[in-house]
Amino acid sequence: MGTLKFRIDNSEGSARLGTLKLKHGTVKTPELMPVATKATVKALSSEDLNEIGAQIIIANTYHLMLKPGEDVIHNGGGLHKFMNWKKPIVTDSGGFQAFSLGLSKEHGTGKMYFKGDVKELITPTDPYAKISKRGVRFKSVYDESYQMLTPERSIRVQEKLGADMILVLDECTSPLSDKEYVAKSLQRTHEWAKQCKELHQTDQALAGIVQGSHWRDLREKSAQYLASLGFDSYAIGGSLGKSKNDMHNILEWVMPNLPEDKPRHLLGIGVVEDIFEAVARGIDLFDCVTPTRMARMGYAYVNPPSGTKQNRYRFKLISIKFANDHKPLDPECKCRVCRKYTRAYIHHLLKVNEILGHNLLSYHNTYFFMELMRNIREAIEYGQFEKMKKGWGI
Amino acid sequence: MGTLKFRIDNSEGSARLGTLKLKHGTVKTPELMPVATKATVKALSSEDLNEIGAQIIIANTYHLMLKPGEDVIHNGGGLHKFMNWKKPIVTDSGGFQAFSLGLSKEHGTGKMYFKGDVKELITPTDPYAKISKRGVRFKSVYDESYQMLTPERSIRVQEKLGADMILVLDECTSPLSDKEYVAKSLQRTHEWAKQCKELHQTDQALAGIVQGSHWRDLREKSAQYLASLGFDSYAIGGSLGKSKNDMHNILEWVMPNLPEDKPRHLLGIGVVEDIFEAVARGIDLFDCVTPTRMARMGYAYVNPPSGTKQNRYRFKLISIKFANDHKPLDPECKCRVCRKYTRAYIHHLLKVNEILGHNLLSYHNTYFFMELMRNIREAIEYGQFEKMKKGWGI
Repeated sequence: MGTLKFRIDNSEGSARLGTLKLKHGTVKTPELMPVATKATVKALSSEDLNEIGAQIIIANTYHLMLKPGEDVIHNGGGLHKFMNWKKPIVTDSGGFQAFSLGLSKEHGTGKMYFKGDVKELITPTDPYAKISKRGVRFKSVYDESYQMLTPERSIRVQEKLGADMILVLDECTSPLSDKEYVAKSLQRTHEWAKQCKELHQTDQALAGIVQGSHWRDLREKSAQYLASLGFDSYAIGGSLGKSKNDMHNILEWVMPNLPEDKPRHLLGIGVVEDIFEAVARGIDLFDCVTPTRMARMGYAYVNPPSGTKQNRYRFKLISIKFANDHKPLDPECKCRVCRKYTRAYIHHLLKVNEILGHNLLSYHNTYFFMELMRNIREAIEYGQFEKMKKGWGI
Repeated sequence: MGTLKFRIDNSEGSARLGTLKLKHGTVKTPELMPVATKATVKALSSEDLNEIGAQIIIANTYHLMLKPGEDVIHNGGGLHKFMNWKKPIVTDSGGFQAFSLGLSKEHGTGKMYFKGDVKELITPTDPYAKISKRGVRFKSVYDESYQMLTPERSIRVQEKLGADMILVLDECTSPLSDKEYVAKSLQRTHEWAKQCKELHQTDQALAGIVQGSHWRDLREKSAQYLASLGFDSYAIGGSLGKSKNDMHNILEWVMPNLPEDKPRHLLGIGVVEDIFEAVARGIDLFDCVTPTRMARMGYAYVNPPSGTKQNRYRFKLISIKFANDHKPLDPECKCRVCRKYTRAYIHHLLKVNEILGHNLLSYHNTYFFMELMRNIREAIEYGQFEKMKKGWGI
């Protein structure tokens, strides 16, 4: 087992307030991890993240093993030193890319990817990933070289990257995969989880990943099997169904089958509403690109009362109506950007494509989510979480 | 006259150590002003600039009057408040754009410009600027609308922007313009300078601009005429000839004809070697996009001994040989980036086109120049400037 201690300090219904100790420090949960895909949270420095109060970040094994390569990062003293981040880091296993670069293309449900620095959309002539019992055969989005990601390679790469917590290799099926395929895939995913556990040699915490798409029996079976193997932490991955209700069901099927005393991480979720609903069902960790991706799309997050469930707690700052608006992004927000800069200024920077615009907006949006999580933790501590949730209109 | 006090505290030969007091604060000279073309020094926040120790910045009237427009900035409380910069600001007059967007295109000596956000190179079918006695008729690079920049409009726009020091409208002739054209243009430039002085109503300091290209009689005449009008400060603009020697000559012709007790600003110059040579000839202020532009091109500045006249005190960080180099950008540098980040990390960020790479490299490069100017000032104070210049191989 790796270096991880988890203590539940308080709870309200199924919502838990926790303390997670990892090699590089302590994380109060529930918490959302900003995503540092390529060893940087997009447009933010580690100094920015510290100022914002981020406690833990997650980086991407797939991208880092291709660029700059795990050996470069290892030579640089590991990911913490390489990117100047002294607090805990999680790395995913690369499994998600099997979805977003492979099957998802065939099903048209995934994202299109940029090709290296060139920023051209790739139209794949053949699938970018093929999955077999051994692992995932990738075609690199950078140079189209073929790469084989096996449970062993994923573990060895993650060891070299040196995060505090690493994830087992899994296959993340498409929402359109049928039950037969998902059941077969789940068997493979479980086999990989077992192999990863056996191969794991460092003091890094190791997390298993529950799959099974939107079928109750598969999700329950997966949670039970992973719990029987015994991991330091548990992540819930894959398709969470087609509606909010599906996601709630999946969480309710999975949770009772995971050990109470281990952290639970809902992979890739970070919409405000989903965070509240998942915390209410016992999730401790989140990761999502939402704050910085929305910034790049010109959206600013706002607290209630301006932020509502209907407007998804954000507004389109790039819209012309904010060109001459000299208020802060969010009058309720106390972040550095809201204290010092205006909507009109950041709107201008975005319009003329200045890098500072992306930095300031990403800073505010990430702060918004860190502050949301701080407030959620405080609410659970004082038994006010349900009240807070209602206050946000959820 | 505007709010400006200038005192010469020390000198070594013609090099001067000065104290320049403007409305928003004091600037120790010689100093280089980072360029905030569109109300941001590219890729840097005002917090970064404060940390770096920048004392004064220069913004661009042409770009700001088009986007976001001087009224938006005025409504936002002026440029200082709009961009959250509390120290002195200079705005240029827009005159340089008559060169870089107008005549220079006809002569093929200027830069190509990006069209708004679209980042397509413009191939102009007609000249982007036409100069008459009244002023400059521009076609906006943003929306192709026609704009007329007269001495009056330049002054009124600069009043609304609210910088500490503003510049008169001038015509910056092309290095390929013949003497007949330059002489005619100079007459117009002098007439505009006179009009600007008469139109000027605020307490902003007003600087005249010496033109005359590389002809001794025209440069001398221009300096004498502007001095006779009496400005708060004097800038030297336009073509500085074809060689370093031409530039030295021009400075030696102009300087004796400018009042000793006023600041002298060499427009658009910022190569290390030129800074030393110009300081040696009595220049007090510089502005140049070099630090941030070179960063965007992947170059990092380095102090001697790594930095030499031959390598222009920089190296191409984006080169593959730095991919696995875990030293700081410049082992001699004490900036935050050099203390915390490595060549390999920033190289990686640039390669995968991450915004943070531009921020970190722009930060270091700007720090390099601010530190160079601090060291130059200290050298003049202790009579060590010539020694320092030799130490830099110049």
